[in-house]
Amino acid sequence: MKKINGGVTAAKGFKAAGIYAGIKKKKKDMALVYSAVPATVAGTFTTNVVKAAPVKWCQKVIKESETANAVVLNSGVANACTGMEGDKNNLLMAKAVAEYLNISENTVLTASTGVIGKQLPIDVIVHGIKNIIPDLKDSIEAGTMAAEAIMTTDTYLKQWAVEFELNGKTVTIGGMSKGSGMIHPNMATMLGVITTDAAISKELLSDAIRNDVKDSFNMISVDRDTSTNDSLIILANGLAGNEIINQKNEDYKIFCKALNKVTTELAKMMAADGEGATKLLEVQVTGTVTKEDAVMLSKSIITSNLVKSAVFGNDANWGRILCAMGYSGIEFNPDTVDLFIESETGKLQLVKDGMGTDYSEELATRILSSKEVKAIADVKLGDGKATAWGCDLTYDYVKINADYRS
Amino acid sequence: MKKINGGVTAAKGFKAAGIYAGIKKKKKDMALVYSAVPATVAGTFTTNVVKAAPVKWCQKVIKESETANAVVLNSGVANACTGMEGDKNNLLMAKAVAEYLNISENTVLTASTGVIGKQLPIDVIVHGIKNIIPDLKDSIEAGTMAAEAIMTTDTYLKQWAVEFELNGKTVTIGGMSKGSGMIHPNMATMLGVITTDAAISKELLSDAIRNDVKDSFNMISVDRDTSTNDSLIILANGLAGNEIINQKNEDYKIFCKALNKVTTELAKMMAADGEGATKLLEVQVTGTVTKEDAVMLSKSIITSNLVKSAVFGNDANWGRILCAMGYSGIEFNPDTVDLFIESETGKLQLVKDGMGTDYSEELATRILSSKEVKAIADVKLGDGKATAWGCDLTYDYVKINADYRS
Repeated sequence: MKKINGGVTAAKGFKAAGIYAGIKKKKKDMALVYSAVPATVAGTFTTNVVKAAPVKWCQKVIKESETANAVVLNSGVANACTGMEGDKNNLLMAKAVAEYLNISENTVLTASTGVIGKQLPIDVIVHGIKNIIPDLKDSIEAGTMAAEAIMTTDTYLKQWAVEFELNGKTVTIGGMSKGSGMIHPNMATMLGVITTDAAISKELLSDAIRNDVKDSFNMISVDRDTSTNDSLIILANGLAGNEIINQKNEDYKIFCKALNKVTTELAKMMAADGEGATKLLEVQVTGTVTKEDAVMLSKSIITSNLVKSAVFGNDANWGRILCAMGYSGIEFNPDTVDLFIESETGKLQLVKDGMGTDYSEELATRILSSKEVKAIADVKLGDGKATAWGCDLTYDYVKINADYRS
Repeated sequence: MKKINGGVTAAKGFKAAGIYAGIKKKKKDMALVYSAVPATVAGTFTTNVVKAAPVKWCQKVIKESETANAVVLNSGVANACTGMEGDKNNLLMAKAVAEYLNISENTVLTASTGVIGKQLPIDVIVHGIKNIIPDLKDSIEAGTMAAEAIMTTDTYLKQWAVEFELNGKTVTIGGMSKGSGMIHPNMATMLGVITTDAAISKELLSDAIRNDVKDSFNMISVDRDTSTNDSLIILANGLAGNEIINQKNEDYKIFCKALNKVTTELAKMMAADGEGATKLLEVQVTGTVTKEDAVMLSKSIITSNLVKSAVFGNDANWGRILCAMGYSGIEFNPDTVDLFIESETGKLQLVKDGMGTDYSEELATRILSSKEVKAIADVKLGDGKATAWGCDLTYDYVKINADYRS
């Protein structure tokens, strides 16, 4: 497997575009991803009871159709809490794409992100769809423009792609996502589109993505707020020409591994670019009885405002990490916990068997001053382990969210 | 029932003191509460798996003894994650009080708050105990000094007292608490001591306090971080001379109502004085199927960083409130939710049946600019209701916690 340039247009047969339609002020705000060849489709969506109109639509399409051809996305307005008018506008968005591409509206997925509670400016969007069609291209640049168009408070675009071999055929998986705030995915991420030219059955594509998010998107948190719009969509058009993956064989494993590389890199970029964040915090928890215990412990640490503030201040305030583990709901013995911090500057043990070591505060601060820092907690009970990603809590997070709408 | 001045010394027979012992820099850091008459004792403590030494000690004392005479408290060091040396130091603290007051160490409760992972400066503390004994007084001022001595990042001291009649006898309940950060109590608050001269059996005192915290301290949150040291202790010395309450009769109900007034006022003060907070946010959720549903929904709103940031910015970003309700884990129909905001400036309906009303943003901002603001959500399913209290998320919260230890 090797990393290659690009995102949603990296795989064969996928075109994309990103344009400024006029929903936001002077920033790209609409994206389209398209495969002329019908692509097997799967997705995972928010577990929030309050679901945006496009989420409900995608769930219906994916349930009823084997394949899809297009994903249309807008930023600026989330089309959530918009009632029947929201559903109607969402359908108009899908229909406009279907009409211009001469496909069925039931093969067009939709995704929206932005302010909750506002209706989509549907005329602007339909006009935008008309304008975006001629821009559809299979170039890396076209994929990049799409990734840019789905950004909200993100400070950089997120895309990643890998290439690997399946029985002599080159297969590609690429994806784009956006994150920044209201990021605590539960079954999916804010918005993500993955494209691949692999040939794979719908059942296995669905299994693959559902399993994958448990270790990738569902392991990141910016602010513990699970959005109303979380959507992760994967399209597989089979153009790589590999023998179709329809059982959980070696090919499936290779596919899942490559998929996980793309999703994990996108997820880490989202965590690192959390609203106001100055650094990426990776938390590894090992030695738990079950993997689920490690997941709960690592997520409890990554979501603690006190831990996140201490990381912002480069303060090795390890008591807060043990405290966050303690209220995670998982049973463990505090008196056997070991805790380390690590970055490019080095690695340091802060806690041995539940008590502070005689570590150098000065070295600890230097380690924590890196752009990417790790905390590693070993509870020494078993073989369970998990990794979660988050970011620090900063003045800018508060600033961004105290005047998001203005 | 009427509010009276004072806190832990308001009830008959309780003395207190607060002094500077030398644990912190130039600020009062030790408090003692004392009843010469043995007082029936009950308490609730943190559910965090990581429990501070004084928490473990208090749980043991309360389990084994019917009564207690004293509570000694220190701020500056939490005596959490301190291993066997921590337990030993905690016992030395109780023993020193017992020796000077000529009582059994098994009637002395302990409580600590401050940095996790540091050992208590036990010589300083024992010396402090020697110095604090002569200061013990039953005056309001003495109780106030004790309330001051348990503060950490609190900006004002918290005490409250009420007086009421039980069959012609005047009964008093008073209390003090401290909060500020790492506040998301689960069975109790950071530190709280309630004293009363009511005569009440241990079983009913225990029931009363356990039930009470569900509506008071357990309904507040500053940062979703449940501390390692949460302790709420109640002492009832019977000096009011009322007929002992040993069944759940009318007297018990009156007692519980008065207790709830004291605990709720203390809890609200803690929420309003959350680290960095500029305002108190009260969230009422009504119309749920069960009370538990209302509790979960109101706590989900009160703990959302996005809601808290919006409140700081006086931004009526109601989508975030619905979003937080949606990920609470409680089932409801988003399309029937009504949402209001209210303060001394007025009341305004933001959402009707799940969609935004045509409200005035300018009025909404004025309402949210008050020091105390309410959000009221009605899900229109049943009779369940609950109220939770929290605060806004501000630059100062981040600042305080990015350099707490320095």
